[in-house]
Amino acid sequence: MRSGERSPLILTVLEGIPLIRPGDDLAEILLQALEESQINLRDGDILVITQKIVSKAEGRLVDLQTVSPSKQALDLADKTGKDPREVELILEESTEVLRSRLGLIIVEHRRGFVCANAGIDHSNLDPGEDNNQDLVLLLPENPDQSAEELRRKIETKKYVRIGVVIIDSHGRAWRVGTVGISIGLSGLPGVVDLRGEPDLFDYRLRVTQIGAVDELAAAASLLMGQADEGYPAVHVRGFPYHLRDGSFEELKRDKSRDMFR
Amino acid sequence: MRSGERSPLILTVLEGIPLIRPGDDLAEILLQALEESQINLRDGDILVITQKIVSKAEGRLVDLQTVSPSKQALDLADKTGKDPREVELILEESTEVLRSRLGLIIVEHRRGFVCANAGIDHSNLDPGEDNNQDLVLLLPENPDQSAEELRRKIETKKYVRIGVVIIDSHGRAWRVGTVGISIGLSGLPGVVDLRGEPDLFDYRLRVTQIGAVDELAAAASLLMGQADEGYPAVHVRGFPYHLRDGSFEELKRDKSRDMFR
Repeated sequence: MRSGERSPLILTVLEGIPLIRPGDDLAEILLQALEESQINLRDGDILVITQKIVSKAEGRLVDLQTVSPSKQALDLADKTGKDPREVELILEESTEVLRSRLGLIIVEHRRGFVCANAGIDHSNLDPGEDNNQDLVLLLPENPDQSAEELRRKIETKKYVRIGVVIIDSHGRAWRVGTVGISIGLSGLPGVVDLRGEPDLFDYRLRVTQIGAVDELAAAASLLMGQADEGYPAVHVRGFPYHLRDGSFEELKRDKSRDMFR
Repeated sequence: MRSGERSPLILTVLEGIPLIRPGDDLAEILLQALEESQINLRDGDILVITQKIVSKAEGRLVDLQTVSPSKQALDLADKTGKDPREVELILEESTEVLRSRLGLIIVEHRRGFVCANAGIDHSNLDPGEDNNQDLVLLLPENPDQSAEELRRKIETKKYVRIGVVIIDSHGRAWRVGTVGISIGLSGLPGVVDLRGEPDLFDYRLRVTQIGAVDELAAAASLLMGQADEGYPAVHVRGFPYHLRDGSFEELKRDKSRDMFR
């Protein structure tokens, strides 16, 4: 299951990534940044990137002036003190509202992860020449597919077999502080299943599914910091599991198995 | 706030750590393992270790044959199908039962983190010569204090300023797969507070507290894997924040602020 266990895990930020605009070719930008950072991609390497640069390249900006809030959005805006137009977008991006309170709406995003405000972001948006402070950024339409497309483009150019992970920063139940977490991936396992593997003393391991891609997302996020447009991409060497096809779907906990809804 | 942002983050497993027995001098064992791994500790380095080796060195093994379950433990054992003696220990180690179902009890551990079965562990316990399968392992009595003691011993021997993190693997609300998480720390920040720091465009950052030590715990856990007595310690170089005094207390979410209890 594991390979090269004794290799160190090395994470390096990519230098020279410019501010991303709608329509930018992110694969090309990442390849240039790798070159600038003097990193030669090898089989087994992984690129971890923030959702923000993916969303921007995909043009997921919305001007709140174009949004008409529904009755449900108005009610929830009243309860939470949030902009009704932003609440409308949150509801459109979600399948279910789990909790809400002043300033915060916790939802199940339509892609299946639970997060605050459907991942809609105000900060680090270049207001541009018209200084439009009503712009917000939605998450990528389909992060798994975005990761897949980036991976295939980069693999084709570089003749390597890599993984690509798209991450966001999420708050957590029970603990203070956000951590990096995967919302889309391609070319590596989301969850590593050790069921049936013996431990050192041949007991059967009881805790058997490792959220490997989320552990990697957290590691990369640590280097990126929060003002994440500065360091939106991290190169990883030494991931200790074999690469394979993978998907965010592996990380979705079935609602009926989730005791904290 | 951040320093040396462009340094890579490098995680290396320590070689040659033996099976740990009650009373072992863990600081001495880690120093030997660092030597064997040809790592010279530097200021700013961090050692991440599993709770299991700390608990074992501290003699936190309990023989279930010595445990008499209370009425409450018997009831909860009935509901969950777990060994009533183990349930008794779970209750003794906890301040509150949050959820329970077949095979699983989610509690607030008396140290303040929420986890399954109060972190009590069966697997990877050396059954020893008497082949006693009734041994279980409790978490360290006070993980922050254990981390502090290890840090001070190692710093004194090596004339360096380091951080020490004790981790466990926890399941999560909403997502499949366990991730490494800190239950005790010393000499580094638990949470990095960016409140008031501007983002690239001088908006005020809204998500402002980074669970830095948990991101690091996840990174180290990725290298350790699950059968964690094999690789129970990881050396980290390149942690991107300044070291300072720190404590698990920073990570505790106040109950009244927690929407998922």
